Amino acid sequence: MIVECIFVGTELLLGEILNTNAQYISQRLAELGVDCFHQATIGDNPGRLSAALQVALTRSDVVITTGGLGPTLDDLTKETVAEVFGRELVLHEPSWAAIESLFRSRGREPAASNRKQALFPPDAIVLANARGTAPGMIMEDGGKAVVVLPGPPRELQPMFEAGVVPWLQERLGPDHRQLYTRIVHFVGIGESDLFTQLEDLFSAADGIGGVYLAPYAKLGEVHIRLSTKAASADEAAPLLDRAEAAIRQRLGRYVYGLDDETLEGVIGQALRDRGWRLAVAESCTGGLLAKRLTDIPGSSDYFASGVVTYSNASKAALLGVPETVLAEHGAVSDATAQAMAEGVRRLADTEIGVAITGIAGPGGGSAAKPVGTVHIAVASPAGTTVRGYLLRSDDRNTVRQLAAQEALRRLWTTLIREGTD
Amino acid sequence: MIVECIFVGTELLLGEILNTNAQYISQRLAELGVDCFHQATIGDNPGRLSAALQVALTRSDVVITTGGLGPTLDDLTKETVAEVFGRELVLHEPSWAAIESLFRSRGREPAASNRKQALFPPDAIVLANARGTAPGMIMEDGGKAVVVLPGPPRELQPMFEAGVVPWLQERLGPDHRQLYTRIVHFVGIGESDLFTQLEDLFSAADGIGGVYLAPYAKLGEVHIRLSTKAASADEAAPLLDRAEAAIRQRLGRYVYGLDDETLEGVIGQALRDRGWRLAVAESCTGGLLAKRLTDIPGSSDYFASGVVTYSNASKAALLGVPETVLAEHGAVSDATAQAMAEGVRRLADTEIGVAITGIAGPGGGSAAKPVGTVHIAVASPAGTTVRGYLLRSDDRNTVRQLAAQEALRRLWTTLIREGTD
Repeated sequence: MIVECIFVGTELLLGEILNTNAQYISQRLAELGVDCFHQATIGDNPGRLSAALQVALTRSDVVITTGGLGPTLDDLTKETVAEVFGRELVLHEPSWAAIESLFRSRGREPAASNRKQALFPPDAIVLANARGTAPGMIMEDGGKAVVVLPGPPRELQPMFEAGVVPWLQERLGPDHRQLYTRIVHFVGIGESDLFTQLEDLFSAADGIGGVYLAPYAKLGEVHIRLSTKAASADEAAPLLDRAEAAIRQRLGRYVYGLDDETLEGVIGQALRDRGWRLAVAESCTGGLLAKRLTDIPGSSDYFASGVVTYSNASKAALLGVPETVLAEHGAVSDATAQAMAEGVRRLADTEIGVAITGIAGPGGGSAAKPVGTVHIAVASPAGTTVRGYLLRSDDRNTVRQLAAQEALRRLWTTLIREGTD
Repeated sequence: MIVECIFVGTELLLGEILNTNAQYISQRLAELGVDCFHQATIGDNPGRLSAALQVALTRSDVVITTGGLGPTLDDLTKETVAEVFGRELVLHEPSWAAIESLFRSRGREPAASNRKQALFPPDAIVLANARGTAPGMIMEDGGKAVVVLPGPPRELQPMFEAGVVPWLQERLGPDHRQLYTRIVHFVGIGESDLFTQLEDLFSAADGIGGVYLAPYAKLGEVHIRLSTKAASADEAAPLLDRAEAAIRQRLGRYVYGLDDETLEGVIGQALRDRGWRLAVAESCTGGLLAKRLTDIPGSSDYFASGVVTYSNASKAALLGVPETVLAEHGAVSDATAQAMAEGVRRLADTEIGVAITGIAGPGGGSAAKPVGTVHIAVASPAGTTVRGYLLRSDDRNTVRQLAAQEALRRLWTTLIREGTD
């Protein structure tokens, strides 16, 4: 089956909106093992949309459109699709009832213009919209189909999953092989090192026993996506397991998690498993490390407190960093990082204390301590480790993110790799 | 002039990459006052690309392509464009010299495959790549042109600005009117209220004297984009000034800034102007407020310290919140927020203390204090103001962002609107 997409909306052509629907639908089609060779973006213009639909229907089995389902006169996707198929639009009573009830639940009445959103060709499959007033539809005729979806991603995504995926799967039949994926997350190894150490696996014609590898570099970590086509999840699982094991055999000490797992989530679980608590002291990252650790629901179980000490005075007053350390070594130094980590651990009476001090820029650098100079310390019952870094970026935000990421990596090695740092 | 875009890359059709180039180019074309009615995405397939180029050249004056300029055999955009124009590719010596020098600066030699990146039609305009090995080009013939750009945004954007914009402007001529915009940022007023109060201006056929308004809702704030076509920035400025003044006359008390200004930046400037310093105490936002305030370069001038007190014990120990307040009112209450704000102000010896305490969820809510309950206090030399909120979201991240945003708004009213809260 060949599917093609047409994204409708003048706001897309004006660059007012980033088209995240394109990535979402493309990714889901690839996962479903469906080919997609063409995508187009068209404004709210029935003539151009009609022309694009007609071309698409000559070369693809299914055309998916997004957008143009609003109540205004500009919104003409459904009307144009109906015209291409030679259909009239008639009121779809259940859709109109749903629109009325949505408005009433908000204490309002639908406008006359909303009635337009409940009009459909009599033989279309109407797709309910759980999060808005615009239902979608699937219009089939002569072996071809157009799937019409609303533009807002929060409305489109549940409709795609509930209404379009099952319909596509039914059309694909039980023997169709779809893509199954697993993402392996690495920290502490760069993309090029990782690639060098797995080069034979990346370049092997059939991957690792039919499982293909694709690397993705993120800020301070690398992911490898494993993918294989199979008729079912049960068929795919042992293939993915074997490929994951082959990678772990070489680089397992850098693997912190799979799929949706995050470094802060894995650290949180490790702290919870031990019944340990943690406190953080930050200078240049300004709260970013605390923010990431507390992004995790339930982090109050192990996150005791965080302190952002920007000034020397606050490092001394809040964390007990000795004035002599600040005077002799400066605020950005191993000695200060160590005193901050040990100070916040003592202050909060926790097992773990982490500290970051550095120069995020753009100002504040010097020849001896340029922008990107960062010192990170981790204090634990086994003692304190401290290291200095020069993070190479001229962007304040990137320096801050890299510093917080490295602190998390150090926490992870301390908690999970037990001491290797 | 009509421009059309073709985005080339199988990775786009597989959803591996979000197409941010589409938004970037669309926005810049709109600003330049150039019409763009069609955009297409095609895989690394010369046959389909050639067909798409030929269709595009029948209906548009200029076609812009992105991607497919790498050194591998899959990368065939330049080759396909040359074929459509009936040209051979020959070595462009300056490009080859630049590629060699880029590799040598990294201590390496270019591979034979990189030579392909220096091949161009003899009569093409070659566009230097300041950040990579793939130059772009402009191929013109018979009044039509194709602009070929690399895929990575950090390479594409400087090439577009340096090589494509001047070429487009020259082609558009001196009398061409382009779009000039100004963005007005509001806080403390919702999108629908704002729309109601400006409805006549939004719906007026010629806007405000030829300046058109478009609203954009962000999390916790609203922006209005003012835009007008003019022959020069000098011609546009008084028109934009007059429209801005008309809006400020009605809703000026909600306007915190223009264009790239941020709430945290405006607050920082107000603190700096007064020579005041600030300290923050956070519970549910977990460092997010401190992080936003310290996103601003130079914030160490006025940001003294931040404290993240997740546990009751740390609220008492670090901030001096009385045990009786915690016991009587609970950690999420006006009384605790007030004690936190006043405590952190005392602790850091600053003019301003801000505190947030609340329930971000998904757990921790109750009938009396559901998820989204947040209390925010601002302590200043004029005294302390404290308010409770119920932020309506079932998403932990959204509750945290709305809470930090509201704390910034309160800081802004305290510092700039002097007491109106």
